[in-house]
Amino acid sequence: MSIQKPRGTQDILPGVSEKWQYMEDKARDLCRRFNYKEIRTPIFEHTELYIRGVGETTDIVEKEMYTFMDKGDRSLTLRPEGTAGVVRAYVENKLHGETEINKLYYMGPMFRYERPMAGRYRQLHQFGIEAIGATDPSIDAEVIALGLSFYKEVGLKDVRVEVNSVGTPACREVYKAKLVEFFTPMKDLLCEDCQSRLLRNPMRILDCKKDVELVKGAPTILEYLDEESQTHFDKLLVYLTEMDIPYIVNPSLVRGLDYYTHTAFEYKADGIGAIDTIGGGGRYNGLVGSIGGNDQSGVGLGLGLERTLLILQAQEVELPIAQPLEIYLVAMGDEAEKVAVRLLFQLRQNGHIAEKDYVGRKMKAQLKSADRFNARYVAILGEDELQKGEIIVKTMETGQQVTYRLDEFVNRMKEEI
Amino acid sequence: MSIQKPRGTQDILPGVSEKWQYMEDKARDLCRRFNYKEIRTPIFEHTELYIRGVGETTDIVEKEMYTFMDKGDRSLTLRPEGTAGVVRAYVENKLHGETEINKLYYMGPMFRYERPMAGRYRQLHQFGIEAIGATDPSIDAEVIALGLSFYKEVGLKDVRVEVNSVGTPACREVYKAKLVEFFTPMKDLLCEDCQSRLLRNPMRILDCKKDVELVKGAPTILEYLDEESQTHFDKLLVYLTEMDIPYIVNPSLVRGLDYYTHTAFEYKADGIGAIDTIGGGGRYNGLVGSIGGNDQSGVGLGLGLERTLLILQAQEVELPIAQPLEIYLVAMGDEAEKVAVRLLFQLRQNGHIAEKDYVGRKMKAQLKSADRFNARYVAILGEDELQKGEIIVKTMETGQQVTYRLDEFVNRMKEEI
Repeated sequence: MSIQKPRGTQDILPGVSEKWQYMEDKARDLCRRFNYKEIRTPIFEHTELYIRGVGETTDIVEKEMYTFMDKGDRSLTLRPEGTAGVVRAYVENKLHGETEINKLYYMGPMFRYERPMAGRYRQLHQFGIEAIGATDPSIDAEVIALGLSFYKEVGLKDVRVEVNSVGTPACREVYKAKLVEFFTPMKDLLCEDCQSRLLRNPMRILDCKKDVELVKGAPTILEYLDEESQTHFDKLLVYLTEMDIPYIVNPSLVRGLDYYTHTAFEYKADGIGAIDTIGGGGRYNGLVGSIGGNDQSGVGLGLGLERTLLILQAQEVELPIAQPLEIYLVAMGDEAEKVAVRLLFQLRQNGHIAEKDYVGRKMKAQLKSADRFNARYVAILGEDELQKGEIIVKTMETGQQVTYRLDEFVNRMKEEI
Repeated sequence: MSIQKPRGTQDILPGVSEKWQYMEDKARDLCRRFNYKEIRTPIFEHTELYIRGVGETTDIVEKEMYTFMDKGDRSLTLRPEGTAGVVRAYVENKLHGETEINKLYYMGPMFRYERPMAGRYRQLHQFGIEAIGATDPSIDAEVIALGLSFYKEVGLKDVRVEVNSVGTPACREVYKAKLVEFFTPMKDLLCEDCQSRLLRNPMRILDCKKDVELVKGAPTILEYLDEESQTHFDKLLVYLTEMDIPYIVNPSLVRGLDYYTHTAFEYKADGIGAIDTIGGGGRYNGLVGSIGGNDQSGVGLGLGLERTLLILQAQEVELPIAQPLEIYLVAMGDEAEKVAVRLLFQLRQNGHIAEKDYVGRKMKAQLKSADRFNARYVAILGEDELQKGEIIVKTMETGQQVTYRLDEFVNRMKEEI
């Protein structure tokens, strides 16, 4: 009779939610230092946005979207990724013009109907940044540095940065022709998907998990970069070196869509079975235009928070999330309970982490609770103490006990903690 | 050609997103002090959950849900409220038994297909808490106190607390019969909705915005409370008084569903046109059972964050969200730019809020930027300085300038800030 959570989703429970808060706090703090400001866009968008902004020939749009009609007959889609929505908001709210460059970040749920497996959820969570309005490779380098800093600051070890250039649409046309030339003789050996990709989007063959061997001898985009692309890429690598960020140039790291330009990068780490990509991003000089804005260029990244957490666990990283109680208030009897309700509220108003019993247990059980919460102090208000206008305060670590006047107790605790 | 956000949704942009962060930080801090732990449940659930957990005869379930079939032919619904999902997670993850009482909080988007108006969005955001596993009225009082503290601590003035008891299902049966008796003679005067409510759920007539005058003479639930309900309600009011929380008993504040018991409450404030309810909650001793768990009782609240923000604006409350830059780095020339990329990254790694130009502007324009960001220091690295291995640091407030050796600059700033 009981109802389960939908397949591919998670409940994040106390004990784990604190780890999420920790990751998110780190992300926010990094963005503050790097001067990125938060933007929050809706959980769903008009479906058209993703067809234009993610690309009709992508797996996401072809197979993975949660698309539905609302009661007003609009086709809506739960956001499968963050960039399209941010760029839509950038255009719609005319953020261009407010400053020369917009540095934005987002965090939150994304939705993809895929087969669930370790590290892959239908509701996943990403932290992402988008820098819109500059073509300088120093901003590409900054974006890569911010992502790597995130992983480092949450405590992840051995994250690899892979970078590549996918050039401009112009040099990509030349390269695509070369790819078609290369793969056509072996067309029958390619997997079914790649046979169709050969016509529609040959660069996506390089991404194929099945045709890895066939791809090995293929020409790389780096051989076909035009001068603009080469300069951009060279500068990026110089900046990464200046920042002491180790990187691997991976010429088969591509993003097949027309509005991606120049920089593409991924973060990789081991620890979640078959999946090793934990985040990535790149430059998209054509995206703003394709969503209906001017031709502002942008660069951004998206990091998977589930995957970050899974690898933190695989690496046995202990996050500093413990939050012991400061005061546990034990009250015995109806009158004491009444006073305890007031004292507890005052302690909390004063900033203390304070708790009491709510299920009418005996003193001994309440003291056990205090222990389980790792309380620093226990305050005991029995009928005797109440009559004398006093309260007993015990320091749990030392076992030391003092008695305070009831009307001084809250202030005394404020001085002490 | 450009795509708009879906009707009834919002983009929360830089300048406003900081206000959301501020509200959320306050909520988290309160929950920490009151010992509530965060739980995160999926954005969508099986539709069945809301039919059982919100109630088939409610406006939400009858008219307002975003319901759709996924690619696996499951009927899913974007969560219209937070309690049902939390209770589902409580049951599914067997949280009962871990401790005697579970004190949980959540924050995030909810979805209701309603006609958008001031303070009413199709994607709305709530902060909510649920205390599951105790019947003691002191926890009802705590929940009410936490909500009011939230409003106070974000800076809201003049929030009113209205409370009522809706008794037990048993005394509600008696009361419903009395209501039917009262309204039947005037049935033709009731609005169409209420004529149908009279048969299905007469207590909901008390909520009607159209039949306000007719409702005025109706019997109140308080006249029909049984002894258990009366004791619970009396104690709640004593605790609120102990905590110095002013309240208004509003006997027509009801929640018509069978699993609501005892306490019902709302927070009200003026400032958003016709809407004055900004949050509310109550006790639900039958909900856990109706979702498939044991018969644990619970009490909780849900607060609307859009409404909180709108009233903060109406009351002209200034939130302390300014976050000026610490250092703006001005670099002139290609070589200086390279060094600046490294220095900027080091400053940020050291914890500073630091920024530079990304669009190759002249010195004067860069200094303007520094001003716009309200930077505390500007560091200038021109070709001259680079050659001498120096950098100029200007304190913006005083205009004072010093020159540091380039290889000492980052450490000097660390000492200074």
